[in-house]
Amino acid sequence: MSTNKKDKELIYNSKEAWIALDNFIKKSNPSNLFILTDKNTRKHCIPYFLEKAIFEFTPYIITIPAGEKYKNISTCVDVWNTLSENGADRNSLIINLGGGVVTDLGGFVASTYNRGVNFINIPTSLLAIVDASVGGKNGIDLGHLKNQIGVINSPEMVIIDTAFLKTLPSEHLTSGIAEMLKHGVIHSKAYWNEVKIINVYNKDEFEKLIWGSINIKKEVVSKDPFEKDLRKTLNYGHTLGHAIESYFLESSEKKTLLHGEAIAIGIILATYISSETHNFSKNTLEEVSKSILNYFSKVEFTNMDIENIIKLLVFDKKNRNGKVLFVLLEDIGAYQTNCTVNNELIYKAFEYYKNL
Amino acid sequence: MSTNKKDKELIYNSKEAWIALDNFIKKSNPSNLFILTDKNTRKHCIPYFLEKAIFEFTPYIITIPAGEKYKNISTCVDVWNTLSENGADRNSLIINLGGGVVTDLGGFVASTYNRGVNFINIPTSLLAIVDASVGGKNGIDLGHLKNQIGVINSPEMVIIDTAFLKTLPSEHLTSGIAEMLKHGVIHSKAYWNEVKIINVYNKDEFEKLIWGSINIKKEVVSKDPFEKDLRKTLNYGHTLGHAIESYFLESSEKKTLLHGEAIAIGIILATYISSETHNFSKNTLEEVSKSILNYFSKVEFTNMDIENIIKLLVFDKKNRNGKVLFVLLEDIGAYQTNCTVNNELIYKAFEYYKNL
Repeated sequence: MSTNKKDKELIYNSKEAWIALDNFIKKSNPSNLFILTDKNTRKHCIPYFLEKAIFEFTPYIITIPAGEKYKNISTCVDVWNTLSENGADRNSLIINLGGGVVTDLGGFVASTYNRGVNFINIPTSLLAIVDASVGGKNGIDLGHLKNQIGVINSPEMVIIDTAFLKTLPSEHLTSGIAEMLKHGVIHSKAYWNEVKIINVYNKDEFEKLIWGSINIKKEVVSKDPFEKDLRKTLNYGHTLGHAIESYFLESSEKKTLLHGEAIAIGIILATYISSETHNFSKNTLEEVSKSILNYFSKVEFTNMDIENIIKLLVFDKKNRNGKVLFVLLEDIGAYQTNCTVNNELIYKAFEYYKNL
Repeated sequence: MSTNKKDKELIYNSKEAWIALDNFIKKSNPSNLFILTDKNTRKHCIPYFLEKAIFEFTPYIITIPAGEKYKNISTCVDVWNTLSENGADRNSLIINLGGGVVTDLGGFVASTYNRGVNFINIPTSLLAIVDASVGGKNGIDLGHLKNQIGVINSPEMVIIDTAFLKTLPSEHLTSGIAEMLKHGVIHSKAYWNEVKIINVYNKDEFEKLIWGSINIKKEVVSKDPFEKDLRKTLNYGHTLGHAIESYFLESSEKKTLLHGEAIAIGIILATYISSETHNFSKNTLEEVSKSILNYFSKVEFTNMDIENIIKLLVFDKKNRNGKVLFVLLEDIGAYQTNCTVNNELIYKAFEYYKNL
């Protein structure tokens, strides 16, 4: 991709990845090596990683607390200080080993430490594999506002090893499926028809669909790195999804939703709105909703919840001049960006979701 | 320059700047406009600025406290929050009006808010005019470590209006002269011979030298945007200078030095070291030291001070593998990068400075 100094983002599968990593380190000769993990990946993923990746020198492992609520500037300051105190310089290498929080925050930390040091992403969650670790976006939350602070800067390599998925709690696996279903509806009927009946227990089929999603994301990002139009489709379901996620994260009474759980609801709402304003077929809407509810339990919303979620919408980064802009669909794979939607229709969409 | 998406950094002088700004705003049609100032420039520079720049809509003015000690992440968080609370989005425009702290911090805030919004630098101090606002480097301090966190990203425009210099306390004017003297020693005998007798009271001559320095910096940055070799010469005197500045900033017993005051000492020390290891002429060393002491009072260092300053050296961003690397000179305009210097010679350099 052309968003930064590198011509393209190199993505490796598990067969070639560990040799490629070894070659990269030999060639780039970093002054030292840091591995960023969270408490979960420190325990469940580091042993496998250190078995696969052989280093000539001992890497320094930095562990942050697990969870979206730590994807903030305070964690960045801790990591920057740890890097500084342990001799990181402009020629150090940082390997981000973890889910979306680790790759998003780690990419931002690396892109800003000493005005940018090399980093490698090794996503260990399905969400990070099919979404967060590809495309060069990184960043952190500002208060309850998701990904408000960050830069666009690609890692030197992304290593995809689905062996890490075995360590993942099942709700985190499901969370990643929301983005794959999104890739289905924005891309093509062909991919939608495959992904809508995704079976995570059929290893070969699942792996094939994972690479299908990675390739769709890569294709979209390479065609439109600066999100002028096509890349906006990756935000399908995210306008309301992010607001829902932020609201549940902030509320002391609500259970925090995983990113995919919030996006799954956002996809249903956006598809309902599409059916009202862009002639998206009602039958296909039913099919999309049904496929999503195969994986995700329904979440309850009071009228007060919906009101507060709408208030949060105006903080979405994709907005312009205070107008809330949606990506909507005329059909599977046929999109319209920059659509305005009135609040009444948003209430109706939640009503539709409630009655499913 | 090619460090980011823009082909080059557009620098305007006062005759053309205000029309160019007006044209830029009309063409880019930002969703809203923020002006970042500090307490000093809010008072002394905003009135002139608002007289010169006519906006169709009212800009929102954000004021941070003045001084290097506020160039930190906590100030960034305050500014990010103020932007967010006042409707800044990806299409907002931020104008950084101030000295190096405002342009460095403001450039970082703008480059990271919503993964990057447009910004314009209007440097109001001599230091910022001849150094900080040109070249795309921005950033903040991490604890007492200078510029540890930042990115390389150029502003849309830099507006140079030397009318702002009238508002500057004299020691701040002098502080900027250190960088101009540095441009002299790294660039050429021709420029050194002009700048070594710089007279700030001769308006035309002073303005000519200011543009001489801006053009040297632009030339160096455009030839080597990623600081592989030539751009390192801009750090002449900064290896020890930064450590001295950090040490005085951190120490409760010491008066904080202005950046230029610390760099002036760093230039004398580096030139002495050059004379010991790179055959830099002793006569020219005397000339450099004398020129600098025309502008800058001597500062006292105890042996303990020197020891602590040497300890801080290892945190300099330009180091590799824990080795402290200096730029040194064989002659005016003839440089060597990546030179290692032993501590004994650093002590001797301080000894030379003390005896001046």
